[in-house]
Amino acid sequence: MAELFERLRQPAVVGQILAGIIIGPSVLALVQPNEITSTLAEIGVIFLLFTVGLETKPHDILRVGKSAFLVAVLGVIVPFVAGYVLMELWGAPNIESLFIGTAMVATSVGITAKVLGDLGLIEHDTSRIILGAAVIDDILGLLVLAVVSSLAQGSINYLELALTAALSIGFLIFVMFVGAPAVTRMAPRIENLRLANSLFAVGLVLCLALSVAAAYIGVAAIVGAFVAGMSLAEATEDNPTMHKQIAGVTDFLVPFFLVGIGLQLKLDVFRDSSTLALTAIITVVAVITKLIGGGLGVLNLGWRKAGQVGVGMIPRGEVGIVVAQIGLGMSVITDSLYGVVLFMAVATTIVAPPLLKVLFKGEGAVAAE
Amino acid sequence: MAELFERLRQPAVVGQILAGIIIGPSVLALVQPNEITSTLAEIGVIFLLFTVGLETKPHDILRVGKSAFLVAVLGVIVPFVAGYVLMELWGAPNIESLFIGTAMVATSVGITAKVLGDLGLIEHDTSRIILGAAVIDDILGLLVLAVVSSLAQGSINYLELALTAALSIGFLIFVMFVGAPAVTRMAPRIENLRLANSLFAVGLVLCLALSVAAAYIGVAAIVGAFVAGMSLAEATEDNPTMHKQIAGVTDFLVPFFLVGIGLQLKLDVFRDSSTLALTAIITVVAVITKLIGGGLGVLNLGWRKAGQVGVGMIPRGEVGIVVAQIGLGMSVITDSLYGVVLFMAVATTIVAPPLLKVLFKGEGAVAAE
Repeated sequence: MAELFERLRQPAVVGQILAGIIIGPSVLALVQPNEITSTLAEIGVIFLLFTVGLETKPHDILRVGKSAFLVAVLGVIVPFVAGYVLMELWGAPNIESLFIGTAMVATSVGITAKVLGDLGLIEHDTSRIILGAAVIDDILGLLVLAVVSSLAQGSINYLELALTAALSIGFLIFVMFVGAPAVTRMAPRIENLRLANSLFAVGLVLCLALSVAAAYIGVAAIVGAFVAGMSLAEATEDNPTMHKQIAGVTDFLVPFFLVGIGLQLKLDVFRDSSTLALTAIITVVAVITKLIGGGLGVLNLGWRKAGQVGVGMIPRGEVGIVVAQIGLGMSVITDSLYGVVLFMAVATTIVAPPLLKVLFKGEGAVAAE
Repeated sequence: MAELFERLRQPAVVGQILAGIIIGPSVLALVQPNEITSTLAEIGVIFLLFTVGLETKPHDILRVGKSAFLVAVLGVIVPFVAGYVLMELWGAPNIESLFIGTAMVATSVGITAKVLGDLGLIEHDTSRIILGAAVIDDILGLLVLAVVSSLAQGSINYLELALTAALSIGFLIFVMFVGAPAVTRMAPRIENLRLANSLFAVGLVLCLALSVAAAYIGVAAIVGAFVAGMSLAEATEDNPTMHKQIAGVTDFLVPFFLVGIGLQLKLDVFRDSSTLALTAIITVVAVITKLIGGGLGVLNLGWRKAGQVGVGMIPRGEVGIVVAQIGLGMSVITDSLYGVVLFMAVATTIVAPPLLKVLFKGEGAVAAE
């Protein structure tokens, strides 16, 4: 499917997500999502963000820090408010509206990162703004989810909330300002270990360890993987063998992530026409609000860049799905609304790559080799 | 642990298996083996054999075919008879003796392949004999297991047995004489696909597809992975990027396989002194019989090579464990005997690498880069 989409001049990622839909429960039912497919998918997106981090030096992100922060904040506020208001107008219970707003917040940076990587654009300034914004967005989305989940349980635990926020920010600052320089300094000694490909081995350990650490303190695992990659970026700049080895792992595992998104989609909730209408509206609102929210943050860089950043923030992918699952688990959203969020998450993910390809046209050669 | 063992001039694989024992249920109990660790371990050994296959052209195996066949047959008969007779003398029920004999048959080629690879010796003639013998050994072991399982259920289904044998041999012949030349001919067209790294992608698909096919017709999945690699060996000879990408996947996944072997070990059955004695005897017999059986097949090549081949066939690893699990599942072997087989499998796997390192001393530089 990836090859087919390349020939149609469409992004390969869309082909792989569609492959997941086709072999998944809704169409051919060849594969049911299970613990193994979801584990491989999760490791896949971890390595995807690690690879992206490897090409992103900390000071590259700091340089675009202000823009990224603005993009992230506006890209959280606009979709959340729009989602909430929309569901209130639709007549949904208050808590359900809050959950739908939350599900519309978090950007799935994996898809955008993969498309930008395939186009050879990871080192563009616009790409850096998107990546930085997506990381901040992840932390903000997490705080919104924490607030909304607390509301669903009756009361907000401000202490826990502050702790999560402080830990997330502390984690990022520590890795960027202490961890990354330390790794860069230690790299020559790591390369001299007896173990063959020792820098690759240490990279794997760092990637997995920081992913677990990030998940443990309450940030998404992919944020840990991204900063792990970032802290190795300078040390491995002149080590093409390590980059190819990591690329091998990533290229093997990422299809599980992409196909896994497609596997999640259930089409049978859409037999009801009112659900179908709501799905269409929510999906359109999800696309437009992220485009506006994300774009507003960098409007000073011109319309073209604003469009690129806005589109780059559109995919919700697995993050929106996770929020919906939590809501379903707490019995505050219905099965059919869960189906709506799933469709929105998959649809926004499929819509963004072709738009990105058009908006970045002429700005970067397709990645060599 | 791998780095520590390299510094002690011991094989890194032993360090990784010991790491598994230490974090496993018997010592620190940090990690319990579960579906996810065992899936990653299984994918790990599949990629290990695929990598080995990539460095083995079909005619290399055919050249050593006669020796490999002799090694495999004698390496199956000697341990099986010895294990059976030993258990009969110990006073075990007939069917239990048969199962222990079977568990002593199958060589775990993964460990030997990894050690030979680390030493840069995969392309030695002795290595080819070991690899070829291990593949044939796998098929013979499977047939023995089929006969013994049928006996445990009361009767032998000769038709099914013949079918499995014919399918396994047909599968090997088809891949070596039809599949491999076809892939070599198609390789330039695969490299011209739009998909980035298309040969790598096709290699992954071929590896996983033939592994599934092999498991489906009743041969071990690793045999499928090995022949998949072999059929790509000529096509990818001049493609270092593909080799590095595959090496990345393998190096990431193989530790799960090695640590997974260690995780299997349960030490608590050895509180009973008679079990402890049986374990010691069986382990020693398992080592000696494979050494003699395997070595006898190539005695015409001189004592040194006979020793190398014999030692290369010693590890039972996961294959012996699988046989014991089947016996346990059919309630024909006891829990404590299962523990004995586990220990034998892990111990033979730990014993072989240092011996291999000594026996191959001076014959190959440690793998460069």
